[in-house]
Amino acid sequence: MNSEFMLKLFRDVRAGKTSPDEAVMRLRHLPFEDLGFAKVDHHRALRVGMPEVIFGQGKTPEQVASIFARLAKHGANVLATRTTAHQFAAVKKRVGRAEFREAARAIVVQRDGKKYGKGVITVISAGTSDIPVAEEAVVTAEMMGNDVRHLYDVGVAGIHRLLANRNVLVESRVLVVCAGMEGALPSVVGGMVGVPVIAVPTSVGYGAAFNGLAALLGMMNSCASNVSVVNIDNGFGAGYFASLINRL
Amino acid sequence: MNSEFMLKLFRDVRAGKTSPDEAVMRLRHLPFEDLGFAKVDHHRALRVGMPEVIFGQGKTPEQVASIFARLAKHGANVLATRTTAHQFAAVKKRVGRAEFREAARAIVVQRDGKKYGKGVITVISAGTSDIPVAEEAVVTAEMMGNDVRHLYDVGVAGIHRLLANRNVLVESRVLVVCAGMEGALPSVVGGMVGVPVIAVPTSVGYGAAFNGLAALLGMMNSCASNVSVVNIDNGFGAGYFASLINRL
Amino acid sequence: MNSEFMLKLFRDVRAGKTSPDEAVMRLRHLPFEDLGFAKVDHHRALRVGMPEVIFGQGKTPEQVASIFARLAKHGANVLATRTTAHQFAAVKKRVGRAEFREAARAIVVQRDGKKYGKGVITVISAGTSDIPVAEEAVVTAEMMGNDVRHLYDVGVAGIHRLLANRNVLVESRVLVVCAGMEGALPSVVGGMVGVPVIAVPTSVGYGAAFNGLAALLGMMNSCASNVSVVNIDNGFGAGYFASLINRL
Amino acid sequence: MNSEFMLKLFRDVRAGKTSPDEAVMRLRHLPFEDLGFAKVDHHRALRVGMPEVIFGQGKTPEQVASIFARLAKHGANVLATRTTAHQFAAVKKRVGRAEFREAARAIVVQRDGKKYGKGVITVISAGTSDIPVAEEAVVTAEMMGNDVRHLYDVGVAGIHRLLANRNVLVESRVLVVCAGMEGALPSVVGGMVGVPVIAVPTSVGYGAAFNGLAALLGMMNSCASNVSVVNIDNGFGAGYFASLINRL
Amino acid sequence: MNSEFMLKLFRDVRAGKTSPDEAVMRLRHLPFEDLGFAKVDHHRALRVGMPEVIFGQGKTPEQVASIFARLAKHGANVLATRTTAHQFAAVKKRVGRAEFREAARAIVVQRDGKKYGKGVITVISAGTSDIPVAEEAVVTAEMMGNDVRHLYDVGVAGIHRLLANRNVLVESRVLVVCAGMEGALPSVVGGMVGVPVIAVPTSVGYGAAFNGLAALLGMMNSCASNVSVVNIDNGFGAGYFASLINRL
Amino acid sequence: MNSEFMLKLFRDVRAGKTSPDEAVMRLRHLPFEDLGFAKVDHHRALRVGMPEVIFGQGKTPEQVASIFARLAKHGANVLATRTTAHQFAAVKKRVGRAEFREAARAIVVQRDGKKYGKGVITVISAGTSDIPVAEEAVVTAEMMGNDVRHLYDVGVAGIHRLLANRNVLVESRVLVVCAGMEGALPSVVGGMVGVPVIAVPTSVGYGAAFNGLAALLGMMNSCASNVSVVNIDNGFGAGYFASLINRL
Amino acid sequence: MNSEFMLKLFRDVRAGKTSPDEAVMRLRHLPFEDLGFAKVDHHRALRVGMPEVIFGQGKTPEQVASIFARLAKHGANVLATRTTAHQFAAVKKRVGRAEFREAARAIVVQRDGKKYGKGVITVISAGTSDIPVAEEAVVTAEMMGNDVRHLYDVGVAGIHRLLANRNVLVESRVLVVCAGMEGALPSVVGGMVGVPVIAVPTSVGYGAAFNGLAALLGMMNSCASNVSVVNIDNGFGAGYFASLINRL
Amino acid sequence: MNSEFMLKLFRDVRAGKTSPDEAVMRLRHLPFEDLGFAKVDHHRALRVGMPEVIFGQGKTPEQVASIFARLAKHGANVLATRTTAHQFAAVKKRVGRAEFREAARAIVVQRDGKKYGKGVITVISAGTSDIPVAEEAVVTAEMMGNDVRHLYDVGVAGIHRLLANRNVLVESRVLVVCAGMEGALPSVVGGMVGVPVIAVPTSVGYGAAFNGLAALLGMMNSCASNVSVVNIDNGFGAGYFASLINRL
Repeated sequence: MNSEFMLKLFRDVRAGKTSPDEAVMRLRHLPFEDLGFAKVDHHRALRVGMPEVIFGQGKTPEQVASIFARLAKHGANVLATRTTAHQFAAVKKRVGRAEFREAARAIVVQRDGKKYGKGVITVISAGTSDIPVAEEAVVTAEMMGNDVRHLYDVGVAGIHRLLANRNVLVESRVLVVCAGMEGALPSVVGGMVGVPVIAVPTSVGYGAAFNGLAALLGMMNSCASNVSVVNIDNGFGAGYFASLINRL
Repeated sequence: MNSEFMLKLFRDVRAGKTSPDEAVMRLRHLPFEDLGFAKVDHHRALRVGMPEVIFGQGKTPEQVASIFARLAKHGANVLATRTTAHQFAAVKKRVGRAEFREAARAIVVQRDGKKYGKGVITVISAGTSDIPVAEEAVVTAEMMGNDVRHLYDVGVAGIHRLLANRNVLVESRVLVVCAGMEGALPSVVGGMVGVPVIAVPTSVGYGAAFNGLAALLGMMNSCASNVSVVNIDNGFGAGYFASLINRL
Repeated sequence: MNSEFMLKLFRDVRAGKTSPDEAVMRLRHLPFEDLGFAKVDHHRALRVGMPEVIFGQGKTPEQVASIFARLAKHGANVLATRTTAHQFAAVKKRVGRAEFREAARAIVVQRDGKKYGKGVITVISAGTSDIPVAEEAVVTAEMMGNDVRHLYDVGVAGIHRLLANRNVLVESRVLVVCAGMEGALPSVVGGMVGVPVIAVPTSVGYGAAFNGLAALLGMMNSCASNVSVVNIDNGFGAGYFASLINRL
Repeated sequence: MNSEFMLKLFRDVRAGKTSPDEAVMRLRHLPFEDLGFAKVDHHRALRVGMPEVIFGQGKTPEQVASIFARLAKHGANVLATRTTAHQFAAVKKRVGRAEFREAARAIVVQRDGKKYGKGVITVISAGTSDIPVAEEAVVTAEMMGNDVRHLYDVGVAGIHRLLANRNVLVESRVLVVCAGMEGALPSVVGGMVGVPVIAVPTSVGYGAAFNGLAALLGMMNSCASNVSVVNIDNGFGAGYFASLINRL
Repeated sequence: MNSEFMLKLFRDVRAGKTSPDEAVMRLRHLPFEDLGFAKVDHHRALRVGMPEVIFGQGKTPEQVASIFARLAKHGANVLATRTTAHQFAAVKKRVGRAEFREAARAIVVQRDGKKYGKGVITVISAGTSDIPVAEEAVVTAEMMGNDVRHLYDVGVAGIHRLLANRNVLVESRVLVVCAGMEGALPSVVGGMVGVPVIAVPTSVGYGAAFNGLAALLGMMNSCASNVSVVNIDNGFGAGYFASLINRL
Repeated sequence: MNSEFMLKLFRDVRAGKTSPDEAVMRLRHLPFEDLGFAKVDHHRALRVGMPEVIFGQGKTPEQVASIFARLAKHGANVLATRTTAHQFAAVKKRVGRAEFREAARAIVVQRDGKKYGKGVITVISAGTSDIPVAEEAVVTAEMMGNDVRHLYDVGVAGIHRLLANRNVLVESRVLVVCAGMEGALPSVVGGMVGVPVIAVPTSVGYGAAFNGLAALLGMMNSCASNVSVVNIDNGFGAGYFASLINRL
Repeated sequence: MNSEFMLKLFRDVRAGKTSPDEAVMRLRHLPFEDLGFAKVDHHRALRVGMPEVIFGQGKTPEQVASIFARLAKHGANVLATRTTAHQFAAVKKRVGRAEFREAARAIVVQRDGKKYGKGVITVISAGTSDIPVAEEAVVTAEMMGNDVRHLYDVGVAGIHRLLANRNVLVESRVLVVCAGMEGALPSVVGGMVGVPVIAVPTSVGYGAAFNGLAALLGMMNSCASNVSVVNIDNGFGAGYFASLINRL
Repeated sequence: MNSEFMLKLFRDVRAGKTSPDEAVMRLRHLPFEDLGFAKVDHHRALRVGMPEVIFGQGKTPEQVASIFARLAKHGANVLATRTTAHQFAAVKKRVGRAEFREAARAIVVQRDGKKYGKGVITVISAGTSDIPVAEEAVVTAEMMGNDVRHLYDVGVAGIHRLLANRNVLVESRVLVVCAGMEGALPSVVGGMVGVPVIAVPTSVGYGAAFNGLAALLGMMNSCASNVSVVNIDNGFGAGYFASLINRL
């Protein structure tokens, strides 16, 4: 319950400024959120510095541009994922400061450069084809105010490349690991560190990869206990989840 | 590299106590871990207070008892998951302080009662049949030194029961949500809070539930961005992952 | 048996107008339907005001236009689903009164504006991408003579938006709920009301959504007992089924 | 909002019986349901005469008996589904009037014999092996106050048996159709009538029946538009959904 | 239409023995089958000598015995498939002539020894584990009056054993081929002969055999055009289908 | 063994025309087929009048034309399936008598008009969208010398249309039944007749039809015993298999 | 062609000992194998020292004992896989030298101790639960005359244990890698060595492991090119395949 | 451990050229590979003559050309798989000696013509549509220095064609077998020879072939023990694996 509003209402009733019937009527028309069932205040601190997000896929360039321009009027960062060069062109006409992160297929405007995350988030990918998904995680975490690093092309069939970069792992507070095909990298990484690992199966591969299903199942069955999984190709979700952890 | 060991070795060589050939030979027989490739030290703080864990399923009572007794000699908490009353009886004979958490199907000895987690972990379950999985998450998080609460039987088809307990959600730092059947609860909970939600699909249900597959797919596709997923019925993994986050 | 026809035949035989052999011969050539095995008369009342329906997908504009024009000659409403702007252009040339419901991808001619449904049918969608399916349900129910409302973008990850519109739910006699991704909305809605809920999984989503399979399985396993399910993206079927119920 | 409660509260505040601060405090401790978010009153009429339901599977005889006895104290009918003879024996000791519907694997006490349904619900099954699921639908609809008939063993490979009973179909207001194997019966029945058909895939069959998956997919793809589907073997859900429709 | 019945009815009406109204009334109560929609006469020749069939699985010994005894009173052969030794014992008490075909898990009484099939049906199996399914096909075809041979353990990994028996293939009019695991045998056999091959996937195998799914898919994709497929383990269906062909 | 060849060889050896060593040498270079392992002679009668067949899909127009022209030089009928108008144009330039069966997507030259089949093959389809597959079966059976009829748009949701055409079923010796979506038609047809039914699942449908998988599973589980199944959309295979049966 | 036999036959014909007709007759009755189509001689060297193999699963103890005793009469090693203690007891009574390899669930008699393999085969397993499958590979390779080593419990989540044993990998000529759950180990091992790796998915795991499907898909998609895969739990096949390679 | 490097370092320390602290520092900055964890030297012999490989799919012509040109500067063969004519045109401009193996969709430069394989590798395909995959295996094995033969269009439905070429099988040391549809060929081939068979499922087929899944499952379940499997359409992997074996 929104105490202040209610207290004022009761006081007005007591003071005779509002009749009991009028008070009930006002409660009826009260916006639902004011009754306390919207996202809980207590967590608001976690939401400071959150970017505005647009899912670009399936939208026309004009639709993306229109939504982007509206959101960009506020002070928050704006992030449009799964976008194309055509969509960016339309956005750019309206929002001059917008940038296209081509590798991540993302359009961004960064208004708020403050670091909200407490440590480093490192985004790791198994192969070069996984990079678009990894970059989506990177840009998401950046727009949410994190110090983000990346480590690409360290697939499990060349384990020495991963081992050679163990310092990067050591210095991270949260890890995002993207892998297609057999999706084995999160287990290996998870076994090397003690911090949370967010695994992202990618649809990279062919044949029995079944568009990411093999990687997804592999990650769900990870023998490392510090691994949890998001949807196939969901770089955004991984970056978002990692950012939440990094703010704790 | 384990600097101290190597420095001493080099010094011994310099001092003539060890010949270069002997030094190489000693390196050859050096335990691998000493070379620095074991779990990275920097994260060690995260591992303080970690319980010793046994996966009981498929082991004979005697096997469980034997491993349990050995691990219980050290100071750490010991947790055996997926255990039976028969296995507990065998353990109890050897480790008098062992307790059976029947609802969680877990055997524990709690040596270390210190709280390592910074906030509250709340474990939520959709239906009463999901409770064994939820309880496994609870006991895991407890053995890892967390303040754990639970909120059961708040399935999405009775959304008011969940809303009535929103205070519990507000006061949590990490949430674990267990649900079978359609697995919708994590999305709803995820939408109500700003903290990380670990979703656990359970094998509860029949018919098209396909032993948890329906719930798993539902959770992977959660429209809430603060949800990540562990394996079907993996209460242990969820409790473990939540504990890692809560230590950050 | 079609009593009147048979009675007349027997009377003709009795009166000597028709010989027994001729009577048997006439029965042989009697259209099958006249023997009573066509759709049963008793239910005919339910079929009054039923629209003529065309499934446009896979048909050429000319094919759709030709069928549409033929059906539009009768007094009933005509509804073509899964149509394109090209198909509409072809129809428009022949049937001037035809309208294109773009959001529903449907072409309609409304001849019969009578309300056959007894209450309100409300069509709900989880996300904006589900709207085409929802709109197909809307236009179907409208063409079948119902008072139809809609409530869009009330996905389970923002449960307050749904709760804020609970009045709409209360005032409905039948509900159609469209959702992709995890398909959780029907369970939540089903738990809030006591009326029948027709769930429509949509192919919205990516990765482990598997073109609507995740949503379909989720809905089949709904923990709300007042939910039944139609095929993926089958807005027409949901609108049709809801209309049948609303006529009872 | 629960107007009466709030109006009285405002009046007490106005009358000075309750201070504004106390009023806010009382709202805080008000049971959530009283705030109006429980199942909406407007639909309450639909819930009159609803049975109390227990899902027996996986519960011990004692658990079932205990819950059953508690629920049987009220005036409503009580229905326990998926029960065994052992569970019934335990219930019988406590609730003398309890009956075991063996074919339906259900335990019932019928306190309220009133007919709430407006027409006849007919439950149809394709084969004799589908009868347990069909009977579960029958007993559910009966406990919800309906006039229920059944028509068994009318599978599509013997279409004449179904046609010979077309009168039964004609006289029904809602149909429940249970079928395993290819699950084709709902389509055929749906094509013969104009009323809503609730299809229940059963796990009957072997080999490529895949425990009801074949029947489920068949029913989802029904070419009859008046068919919607519930979960595999979910006779209860079908009977429940049919009863809701029959009360409209 | 059943001409004789109708002709007599019309004659009675003409003769004044029956009034038109009475005639209509009699038609109403006429058994459906008499109206001509039962299994079509023209095909009756194909059904002469057809056995009575009982599906034993899931039935109690007493149920099987009771049905078997009733059917055995007529002149036709009786075949109970998927039976156990216990079921046989119960049958034997009632029907002294009943025999147990253990390898086929079938109980039979052969009353009619006439050969209805025009040529030889040969049943082939890939491995020894496929024999129960193959034997079910054998006994079915025998009970339907065919000259049946078999050729077992001629899997594709020992192609010379199959080739060594090519004479058996040459002399057959119809072939039934049972195989589990990869289900490749029907393609090889189909390529060696010009007659129809009925393929039966069996649930033999482990791991990725997925209870016959691998064999089923393999057979569906046979590169031999003279192969069609029945359900997994459906030896009865294959024997039945082969018998129908052999009667043509 | 090819007796004549061997007898002559032995006689030549006996007559001294060929030395034993030369004879062995000649055997070594003897074409494999001459040793008797090619398709067995005994079945040759079945192959008289068989068409030459080309699978057009994935081939360039020029490739199809080139193969077609070569095969058309012989006396047999030529059938190219899965072809396009472009492929036909290329064929037509080379083989003036070639015809395009557009509905069947087939190119044919009919040289041999003899009837090899003993009865009528009827090809049935559930919906209009199944017609291309049905027509492929029709043209295949025609090219193999059968009297072929068809009966389209008799889906199970309009069972009276099928019943009204029962005469067609009665007069057929073999039936091919094509259906997508739930694939229920073969079971219904199979139950109405005593002759073999070849079922062809089609990829018609959307959503949970899963490109023909639902229909395939439905047909595999047919409760009619006179049904066997070929691959999804395999009209050619069904027509071929039906023709083989019809020649028996 | 079996030259010697044929040469003698031709000589006999030339010499008049056998008439041409008799010669043809003799060829007709010649065992098929003698015509040269049995397993090709050239490879016979590879088969020297091959064990006789029995698949024990599904056989009665008496059946296993009977086959085992018969095979044990020859000089070759005998290997029975998937056996139980009961089966061993029955074998032991007949073949005193038989041994039970409990961990491998195998019964063996080793007659031939010769080493046919040229190098070391090392069998690796990810977890302790994979050991039965790994041991089956070990015992198979041993019975086929190889120097076999093993390396257990070196799962990817503890990559240092694997790295610590890299010497074992270096010294192997062929590797067999068994892993359940995510099945990632073969990729990691494959990346560390240049020799062939035979991957065996095991059914170890729960939930989304789907009885080995997750591991199977993972291994099929291995990013290491020197990995090929055998069936789930097929330790025998892996040991066999590795042995063939090791003999080359 | 890289002994030489370490020995020198110890000697330098002993000789006073390097202080112990400096030595530790140098170890810290030592490239990881030098520590011995890179691909193990012992196997290096196997890697002599290995081609440089590029996976062309998804890369722009310019990307392929750029990588190709860089790799072509060294002495090794270069192989780009899954390439197009456009990609080849771009490569050709930079590397004049590059050739396009159109059937294999591969671009190659052969610098090193030495034979590293000890015997013949034969690549077999079931149908003409499997040839692109087979050719990829051929070109891969050739670039790895093998004597490669091929045998195409020997599907199991024409087993005599395969038998007629048994000499080719006999003379091979390793076999690669590519097949789509039911994927049965590896089992048949495996049964005819004693050497290792690498099976490659192809995505050839339609309907229930499910893009190679049917073939994959068939091959996993091969009843021949000398068969192991690589990913769908993975001709490269099969050629690579076969080459490794052939070097042993």
